Amino acid sequence: MPGNTFGQLFRLTSFGESHGAAIGGVVDGCPAGLRMDTAQVQAELDRRRPGSTPLGTSRKEEDRVEFLSGIFNGETLGTPIGFILRNQDARSDDYGHLQDSFRPGHADLAWEQKYGLRDHRGGGRASARETAVRVVGGAIARQLLAAHGVQVRAWVSQVGAERLLIPYQELELDQVYASAVRCPHPEAAQRMADLIGLVRGQGDTIGGRISCVAQGVPAGLGEPVFDKLHADLGKAMFSINAVKGVQFGTGFDAIAMRGSEHNDAFVRKGASIGTATNRSGGVLGGISNGEDILFDVAFKPVSTLMRGQRSVDRQGGEVVLEGKGRHDPCVAPRAVPVVEAMACLVLADHLLRQRAARA
Amino acid sequence: MPGNTFGQLFRLTSFGESHGAAIGGVVDGCPAGLRMDTAQVQAELDRRRPGSTPLGTSRKEEDRVEFLSGIFNGETLGTPIGFILRNQDARSDDYGHLQDSFRPGHADLAWEQKYGLRDHRGGGRASARETAVRVVGGAIARQLLAAHGVQVRAWVSQVGAERLLIPYQELELDQVYASAVRCPHPEAAQRMADLIGLVRGQGDTIGGRISCVAQGVPAGLGEPVFDKLHADLGKAMFSINAVKGVQFGTGFDAIAMRGSEHNDAFVRKGASIGTATNRSGGVLGGISNGEDILFDVAFKPVSTLMRGQRSVDRQGGEVVLEGKGRHDPCVAPRAVPVVEAMACLVLADHLLRQRAARA
Amino acid sequence: MPGNTFGQLFRLTSFGESHGAAIGGVVDGCPAGLRMDTAQVQAELDRRRPGSTPLGTSRKEEDRVEFLSGIFNGETLGTPIGFILRNQDARSDDYGHLQDSFRPGHADLAWEQKYGLRDHRGGGRASARETAVRVVGGAIARQLLAAHGVQVRAWVSQVGAERLLIPYQELELDQVYASAVRCPHPEAAQRMADLIGLVRGQGDTIGGRISCVAQGVPAGLGEPVFDKLHADLGKAMFSINAVKGVQFGTGFDAIAMRGSEHNDAFVRKGASIGTATNRSGGVLGGISNGEDILFDVAFKPVSTLMRGQRSVDRQGGEVVLEGKGRHDPCVAPRAVPVVEAMACLVLADHLLRQRAARA
Amino acid sequence: MPGNTFGQLFRLTSFGESHGAAIGGVVDGCPAGLRMDTAQVQAELDRRRPGSTPLGTSRKEEDRVEFLSGIFNGETLGTPIGFILRNQDARSDDYGHLQDSFRPGHADLAWEQKYGLRDHRGGGRASARETAVRVVGGAIARQLLAAHGVQVRAWVSQVGAERLLIPYQELELDQVYASAVRCPHPEAAQRMADLIGLVRGQGDTIGGRISCVAQGVPAGLGEPVFDKLHADLGKAMFSINAVKGVQFGTGFDAIAMRGSEHNDAFVRKGASIGTATNRSGGVLGGISNGEDILFDVAFKPVSTLMRGQRSVDRQGGEVVLEGKGRHDPCVAPRAVPVVEAMACLVLADHLLRQRAARA
Repeated sequence: MPGNTFGQLFRLTSFGESHGAAIGGVVDGCPAGLRMDTAQVQAELDRRRPGSTPLGTSRKEEDRVEFLSGIFNGETLGTPIGFILRNQDARSDDYGHLQDSFRPGHADLAWEQKYGLRDHRGGGRASARETAVRVVGGAIARQLLAAHGVQVRAWVSQVGAERLLIPYQELELDQVYASAVRCPHPEAAQRMADLIGLVRGQGDTIGGRISCVAQGVPAGLGEPVFDKLHADLGKAMFSINAVKGVQFGTGFDAIAMRGSEHNDAFVRKGASIGTATNRSGGVLGGISNGEDILFDVAFKPVSTLMRGQRSVDRQGGEVVLEGKGRHDPCVAPRAVPVVEAMACLVLADHLLRQRAARA
Repeated sequence: MPGNTFGQLFRLTSFGESHGAAIGGVVDGCPAGLRMDTAQVQAELDRRRPGSTPLGTSRKEEDRVEFLSGIFNGETLGTPIGFILRNQDARSDDYGHLQDSFRPGHADLAWEQKYGLRDHRGGGRASARETAVRVVGGAIARQLLAAHGVQVRAWVSQVGAERLLIPYQELELDQVYASAVRCPHPEAAQRMADLIGLVRGQGDTIGGRISCVAQGVPAGLGEPVFDKLHADLGKAMFSINAVKGVQFGTGFDAIAMRGSEHNDAFVRKGASIGTATNRSGGVLGGISNGEDILFDVAFKPVSTLMRGQRSVDRQGGEVVLEGKGRHDPCVAPRAVPVVEAMACLVLADHLLRQRAARA
Repeated sequence: MPGNTFGQLFRLTSFGESHGAAIGGVVDGCPAGLRMDTAQVQAELDRRRPGSTPLGTSRKEEDRVEFLSGIFNGETLGTPIGFILRNQDARSDDYGHLQDSFRPGHADLAWEQKYGLRDHRGGGRASARETAVRVVGGAIARQLLAAHGVQVRAWVSQVGAERLLIPYQELELDQVYASAVRCPHPEAAQRMADLIGLVRGQGDTIGGRISCVAQGVPAGLGEPVFDKLHADLGKAMFSINAVKGVQFGTGFDAIAMRGSEHNDAFVRKGASIGTATNRSGGVLGGISNGEDILFDVAFKPVSTLMRGQRSVDRQGGEVVLEGKGRHDPCVAPRAVPVVEAMACLVLADHLLRQRAARA
Repeated sequence: MPGNTFGQLFRLTSFGESHGAAIGGVVDGCPAGLRMDTAQVQAELDRRRPGSTPLGTSRKEEDRVEFLSGIFNGETLGTPIGFILRNQDARSDDYGHLQDSFRPGHADLAWEQKYGLRDHRGGGRASARETAVRVVGGAIARQLLAAHGVQVRAWVSQVGAERLLIPYQELELDQVYASAVRCPHPEAAQRMADLIGLVRGQGDTIGGRISCVAQGVPAGLGEPVFDKLHADLGKAMFSINAVKGVQFGTGFDAIAMRGSEHNDAFVRKGASIGTATNRSGGVLGGISNGEDILFDVAFKPVSTLMRGQRSVDRQGGEVVLEGKGRHDPCVAPRAVPVVEAMACLVLADHLLRQRAARA
């Protein structure tokens, strides 16, 4: 089964190369009769646009989403929602030198090893440009989730060694996109921005961490034993370019913890039962338990450097490659809407899947 | 779509509750004409058996796998391989007190929130017992992989704060199962065993880390943009009970790295091209690049404690629960064959999927 | 993707060869909290048993279904329902002569062409014995359907040239299984039985037709444009051994009809809208319209004859094969519960799928 | 799972309403490195265009397919092939009267019963216009099949009572599209054309039959027990608008045949084994056996009549509807390329699936 469709009942099929005619997608399974605010979808798309932050690249991609089907009089029809984003401002010449060379840290060679050929222009299908399609799909999913009281928000919680350790409950998550680095804590954001600037000046790049919280998720989502909610979220995150790690709740810190300190005690919360703490990150046994779902995503430093790197060409000869084109020194700020989008897709899918759980 | 089937072309469907008549599974898509050593499958199953390590529980589950179909004269037929493991030694009485109470850290409540009812005996379907089915499926997949030169090995690399930092290339990975804690480094293993013993004596539990390496994986496996090889591996790992984090290569450490130090330089390796280092963990852009695939899995401490924990019952009344039955203080040693099994399932699946990649 | 799983949300995975240890299956996706009468499942299974009709074979397969999981205290858990049927009374010796020869009309050669090997005993996986698993799965689905007011009934409407043309509304469909040939019209049943007896005496076989009606199906089931309700029903029917044709409503007769006589006029039916006639067979545009769903299935004559047939062996040498073992002269009577089962599986699946249709 | 994706390894996802901005699709899983002649795809698309035959409607849809991705320098990349067809010449006014009324024989009401709303313009998603997307997908599949020596051809073999009974081996199948009614036998074609003209003059419509043959299909395609080759072909055909019946080989005629006359004898054919006759239609046990695959598809008469029909409106009030817009009196001629396309999609899918069959 080819790998460009995500989800079971709420599904996104994605297509498009970076420098082809267009990228686009099809959302199939969005329930009928949902009010769909396409301007809001465009607004979310604008958040991942290159150039949307002063720290990002200088590219000015328009990224206008054009909806082709599935929406009628402002409501979803229950039929597939097709959409495209025309590719513009493609400086394919910037990539001519890559036709026969393989950039370190990039998938150039791996794609050739897989398919025997590739579209080298702008990374082709391996370009992060394809994540724009995810953002559109996620924005549609988000409107379904919103109708069910679910809210998903992500932010940059670390750049290099600069980490934001303040609990999310104390952050102004509505202010994430007001920050160029997508960090809602002004002082931490400034430190991160300074670090990114420093690294950029060195022609180098740096990694980052995005944290994400989903609130209002009803208890009961997730399909054990394989399609556990956090398993599907984990896959969704690893499918994003440059992701090297994912953790839920305490994550890797749980290794050094005792059961007596890790277990979340059950307590009465009004008419229902909740947990006093949330070390599990809102998922128990692969099923949402009604608490906030919380996870972290680790991004490696961007592979394209603005300075020479030694590599080899198709014949195995040594070459020195230097980044051309326009690239971010840290992927995390622009990946925030992508993390949110993928989380929305997973949650919308499981929201629908849960409808079949009971007789 | 229900969640008890894993994989696309090489698929495992799993069934069974801990204290029902049997657990079992169906492997569909195993290619025809493969020599299948069922004794070897049983041998792998024995590795996860409770009681297989002195550090584990005192349960003596037989876990005899009975193959029902799909194998004829020692070869696979290409038809589905059905198998069952009868449940034995089930002390359901140990769980009677759980019918109306919810154990902290367990999925008892979440399952009820999802389905409206549950089989409370031994954790029912949420029990780690279901992982025995994964081990059988994975052992079948491993024989397919072996025929293609692929080898998958995992080991415990951390218990609590005791971490093994020696590179896997310097470890005797063939000796993993000779160690009670499934750590191939004798001194580290001893420290881990001591820690587990200490924790057990306190009626407490502790987390752990498993590292896994897949060697001999051909370049080209993985189906971007969603079914990337490490995305499917990540999902596989998160689907295992108690897993809170997964990372590939440098993982979370990549956050604080520079691109100039993280990128793996391409170099000639004989007739082909490889990388001088392997910080990416053998996957670039979601596709295997021919290097070793390396990842870590973080397990939380076991939730069942041998001492009282406060919780609530169905009516929200406060209760104190104390673990009965037989439980491991650290899940990592017994989870090693499960991590291997899930990795084998993913790799076998992608090995077959890759056959459709070229015209 | 291997082909032994049927359905999306309500799924049956099947395994087993005719003369292996057992056949069995896994129903995943049956909603939780459904009362499950396992004795009723066994009763349905008994209806397809060889020897269940005087016209059938003399084999006395026990076909006891053993449920292994997914049902607790008489209710479904929402977890997969695993079950097996041990193979008994297997006279494998009857099939020794087939190891190197290919029976005309059978799939012996095709399976070898596909897989390179096969289990020749009793037809292996190609045996109609696998349909027993479908009957179990269908009987589970039927209990879900019954809870939603849906009823599915099939009957033999033709054997050879003996055709029953009386409309189903005038038949006693509750009496189908009281008839050895599974035809609810006594006189027609007698003519069919006489014909089968005649053909049997000649060592020959004959084809048959099964008609099926699903009543009480709510309007709105079916997922255009590909997973139309009748498309999935059609696939389900063609997946049954020996089926050569399927038609809905007027079927092939529609070719020679005018639109003015074929169209079903819409009329008020109480508070809702229905059709005055039902030439469409209850499906319009691939979606159920609330009328009875009606279709016919054509079965070819059984391929195994009790007289010599010329064929070839593995080396291409000419051989004469004569049927051994025990075989029906007409497959239709025993296929009635299989047609019902597959129809139930499709309808249960679409019943659940429809739950995701609206926001 | 929503129903707008067809196939497993070679998959077409379709979107678009008749009077929306565009229809389109995504072919995912087309192997890399295949020469792709996009002009040939357009040529196939032209064959189903309204107005492409004198007997068809007077609409002049351009139906220009625009490829957006997946093809680079005339070769497939292995990435998804996205494409769109802009909707033009849409006279939505012709459909205004249908907003609150339900056309007999159409899916208007069924779609509302399913989704609670619909796009009434031109039939919306239920319009046969969506089959243009299938033709594009099928034309891509056909180029993969051609590279493996497989050829698929369909023709109109019956209109009303006018049936062509000459065996396909004696027909000039290359001449199908030279005939306005898509019948390669000139005299029969004339009789069919005359009948269509007669029916049109009466403001009425009539049914038709399409026969299809796939030649050069390698033995071994098909995935028992559920995804049998003819089961997937059957589903593919039933998913086409207006199809009421499908049969393979002898089909419904097999009911009245004896096994001794129906069985195809195995004979040596050069180095391999084939059958002397082909009553099975090229499929045995759900697997292709190397003979021609042959099937028939029955189409009901077009539901839109150019004369008044009584119906009801949303409130159940009686109305009289008369067809407006431009409609064919017989759907069969324009459905020929659609039948071919769906057959190509199924065969391409199974061609790839078969690659996983052997170790």
